[in-house]
Amino acid sequence: MGTTIAVIGLGRMGQSIAERLLASGYTLRVYNRTASKAQSLVERGAQGCANPAEAVRGAEFVITMLADDQALRETALGEQGFAAAMERGTIHLSMSTVSPEANRAVAAAQREHGSELVAAPVLGRPDVAAAGQLVLLAAGSRALEARCRPLFEALGRSYTWFGDDPGLANAAKLTFNFLLMSIVESLAEAFTLAEKQGVDRAKFFEAARLMFGSPSFDGYGKRMLAGTFQPAGFTATLALKDISLALALAQEARAPLPLGSLIRDHLLTLLARGRDNWDMGALLQVDRESAGLS
Amino acid sequence: MGTTIAVIGLGRMGQSIAERLLASGYTLRVYNRTASKAQSLVERGAQGCANPAEAVRGAEFVITMLADDQALRETALGEQGFAAAMERGTIHLSMSTVSPEANRAVAAAQREHGSELVAAPVLGRPDVAAAGQLVLLAAGSRALEARCRPLFEALGRSYTWFGDDPGLANAAKLTFNFLLMSIVESLAEAFTLAEKQGVDRAKFFEAARLMFGSPSFDGYGKRMLAGTFQPAGFTATLALKDISLALALAQEARAPLPLGSLIRDHLLTLLARGRDNWDMGALLQVDRESAGLS
Amino acid sequence: MGTTIAVIGLGRMGQSIAERLLASGYTLRVYNRTASKAQSLVERGAQGCANPAEAVRGAEFVITMLADDQALRETALGEQGFAAAMERGTIHLSMSTVSPEANRAVAAAQREHGSELVAAPVLGRPDVAAAGQLVLLAAGSRALEARCRPLFEALGRSYTWFGDDPGLANAAKLTFNFLLMSIVESLAEAFTLAEKQGVDRAKFFEAARLMFGSPSFDGYGKRMLAGTFQPAGFTATLALKDISLALALAQEARAPLPLGSLIRDHLLTLLARGRDNWDMGALLQVDRESAGLS
Amino acid sequence: MGTTIAVIGLGRMGQSIAERLLASGYTLRVYNRTASKAQSLVERGAQGCANPAEAVRGAEFVITMLADDQALRETALGEQGFAAAMERGTIHLSMSTVSPEANRAVAAAQREHGSELVAAPVLGRPDVAAAGQLVLLAAGSRALEARCRPLFEALGRSYTWFGDDPGLANAAKLTFNFLLMSIVESLAEAFTLAEKQGVDRAKFFEAARLMFGSPSFDGYGKRMLAGTFQPAGFTATLALKDISLALALAQEARAPLPLGSLIRDHLLTLLARGRDNWDMGALLQVDRESAGLS
Repeated sequence: MGTTIAVIGLGRMGQSIAERLLASGYTLRVYNRTASKAQSLVERGAQGCANPAEAVRGAEFVITMLADDQALRETALGEQGFAAAMERGTIHLSMSTVSPEANRAVAAAQREHGSELVAAPVLGRPDVAAAGQLVLLAAGSRALEARCRPLFEALGRSYTWFGDDPGLANAAKLTFNFLLMSIVESLAEAFTLAEKQGVDRAKFFEAARLMFGSPSFDGYGKRMLAGTFQPAGFTATLALKDISLALALAQEARAPLPLGSLIRDHLLTLLARGRDNWDMGALLQVDRESAGLS
Repeated sequence: MGTTIAVIGLGRMGQSIAERLLASGYTLRVYNRTASKAQSLVERGAQGCANPAEAVRGAEFVITMLADDQALRETALGEQGFAAAMERGTIHLSMSTVSPEANRAVAAAQREHGSELVAAPVLGRPDVAAAGQLVLLAAGSRALEARCRPLFEALGRSYTWFGDDPGLANAAKLTFNFLLMSIVESLAEAFTLAEKQGVDRAKFFEAARLMFGSPSFDGYGKRMLAGTFQPAGFTATLALKDISLALALAQEARAPLPLGSLIRDHLLTLLARGRDNWDMGALLQVDRESAGLS
Repeated sequence: MGTTIAVIGLGRMGQSIAERLLASGYTLRVYNRTASKAQSLVERGAQGCANPAEAVRGAEFVITMLADDQALRETALGEQGFAAAMERGTIHLSMSTVSPEANRAVAAAQREHGSELVAAPVLGRPDVAAAGQLVLLAAGSRALEARCRPLFEALGRSYTWFGDDPGLANAAKLTFNFLLMSIVESLAEAFTLAEKQGVDRAKFFEAARLMFGSPSFDGYGKRMLAGTFQPAGFTATLALKDISLALALAQEARAPLPLGSLIRDHLLTLLARGRDNWDMGALLQVDRESAGLS
Repeated sequence: MGTTIAVIGLGRMGQSIAERLLASGYTLRVYNRTASKAQSLVERGAQGCANPAEAVRGAEFVITMLADDQALRETALGEQGFAAAMERGTIHLSMSTVSPEANRAVAAAQREHGSELVAAPVLGRPDVAAAGQLVLLAAGSRALEARCRPLFEALGRSYTWFGDDPGLANAAKLTFNFLLMSIVESLAEAFTLAEKQGVDRAKFFEAARLMFGSPSFDGYGKRMLAGTFQPAGFTATLALKDISLALALAQEARAPLPLGSLIRDHLLTLLARGRDNWDMGALLQVDRESAGLS
């Protein structure tokens, strides 16, 4: 019987990670605020738990995949939170896209109880996670790397250790999400410019993707060409959360981020028009509407 | 002995194209304002010519690869220009990155003398051209496509025909260049944000390129990490020319292009600081300096 | 009987200037492409003329107030243009909002015929002109200042001589128009922010104008509060012309102008939505619509 | 003997307000964290107090003028805070530039102890306050207006009541500060454009101020022309605090604020270059340096 891992937070991403770990032979304890989401994992052998503190009992690793700073803080530090319940010497892999600060706060609380935190946010969508092909951005005490490696190898095709401060991994992840959104906005403006000039967008995209040929680029391009923004892969609301975190980091670091501000403004327009749940590829619609297209 | 082609404009790109055509068995007549640049081609069998009008004599195709609108207009329509000298029924493949308008003007002049213009700007650098792996963006009378195809296949791995108006291919090319610069600016801001937060940029880039994995992205990323902006692949001066053309098209089409304006402003800062000949990857320096880095 | 002045271009501004000069005792010769616009001036004693060349006959001063570069070039340099017809030693006061280049070209042509050009674009609306309260921005050979002064004093409450190069006055005027549009955009964003927060805009404006208390500010604020953008004082189309000229100067001078680009983009959105003839105060609508208001 | 007023926070603005109230015959109780700042007021008859709770004893009005949200929260709600110590039915005039949220939180705490909060941030500098010429932006229960009026009339030339929610006055104030900074940025870009074209900036400004003629505009213009940014009237650090609050309100209200983002980025550049204590008029330096001027 394998190492025991607690997985807390079973949204689409958390679920895919849990599935992958089950398939890799690990023993799982799972918890989600809405218990029904744990059902299919329990059917496949995971141990369902009633609260975060119970979930981490006997676990060598705790993986969290939660919506935002607040969810992480509550789950770790709130009533029945897991921070105080983790056994000495065990490791919390904090995989959510949250602020460096949130991870630092949880790490400090854990330290008082003798457990460790490694930030390990991931690049890739749920299907990539299920296939064990994520790219992991890790940071925390370097002494923990060897212990984490087998898990990282089960989940991803690659990982990078950014340093001792767990916040560095979150900073890298938010910078990556900024970059991804920037490329989406770039493509949105290019498509709009093409359309207004009477250039066939699909033909333009075929040529452009031959030059760029990246899966992310392709995925967003196809979605934009199809004009299908629901169901979302990454909602405008989540995108606004992430770009706001990136802008806050930029401000703290005293780095202008003009493209970040542009994206934030366009996301606000999406939300102001009631498209909170549209995919962020709908940045295209903001640019198109500013050009008089509907 | 193969079809005769005139190649006019022997900068690095024109030269690579000419070499590729020689290697593919075509008979070449070549012209360049600075004659010395024709030397190596002449040594390999091309016929050097004294002026554009002479170059096109007996040629079934004329390929131009010139610096800008003005150079194209002068070479085609000026004294000893080739537009009036082309034989009836022959085809001018206008491959420069110029405005749609410039091509339309030359096309109109040619039409009076019975020859045709197909706009065929290309995606890819000189080394890509030499390998016959360009992506061509073509537009012009559809009836000419079949005659152009063998040449396109000699030069590139793919071509797209955008329509009957030659200007469409130029519009597509300028839109592509805008997209490329946008991605460079995106990466420049991401690198600056990473650096100011103490995130190792090289590690960040390794993770990011695993996700994006496109050659253009990789090339610019490596250049930025190295901080080597000379010699340039694509100078700030040329980039400013192209983004200005894109902004002019956007204005004419009544399409806002906020990212285009941002890039233009940052290029102006590069030029205002005397870096005209730096590669446009030096957009990174503008962002770094705005963040107080030097 | 006073000095003879030719006034060419009788739009609302030209007309107001002509009226003011008539009222000040000058003898006028007038020309407008659409002759009917000269009618009321002729009734008050001005001499109507059939073309620009005829208008300048016997005039010591020629005043032009035309729509744009092209109109100025045609009227001065075209068939029946006035540049060649002006008498030696007479002065052309070029008052239109045009590019420095256009004035320099006309000045050069005049010089060949022995006449002079002083650029003298004006700040203020037609009603201000009629009251003789304009602010004039002048440039040209300093030796001409004393001769121009009486006219400047008839037309305005103040004038500034920017130097020997007539283009300097145009550069100053375009910079002023950029500043004016920037203040309008500032107010548009402030009003939108206030509205979205439930802050009474009229109350906000009352407080703000007590602090700023400038007529331009007041005029635009009132128009925005009323939401009345037609008839226009200054159309979106004209504003786009001017901001494009300012951006071109900025590019030539290698000066980024981010606010200029923002204004240009918002004007393009106005035009893309068919509001070419709305007052530029309608920049408010662009901001409101981006915030989901209608 | 007049009404008793507690004045808490004796920075330059708080001090000027206190002086004005003393001169108007009110009885003052004063408190400042650094006690020495109370000295000159005590010499003129004010009662110096040891902490906020003591200051409000017997006072019918409490005026706070503090640096930011945190200072307000601590002074009102912290140990020896005044919220619990105010007598029933008395009124707190919260004059600091803080977030609507901070005032709402203090108002809620006061309500539990039976006292009232009226937000009353002010427009104008310390010298304007000393002269009783402020413009006040007020909000809170309308029933309190009549009682506040005499104080407002002692302090200012005008006040506006924005509604029952105290946060509305703060929203209006932050919107005003955004507008003021926008006008400063507008002028900074105009000056830079003028300078790069060789247009005499002082002459340009003389003409522009004749058209705009507002004291704020004049003050900033003169400072920029002189290039004297220290000592500051309004530091870059404070400006960043205010624009960040405005951007946060905009985000909450789902209103893009592109000019706000531009200002934020330029302030970050100022700070990244170590100019935290420069006046925000130094936005000019950011624009100049981007244009290659030093």
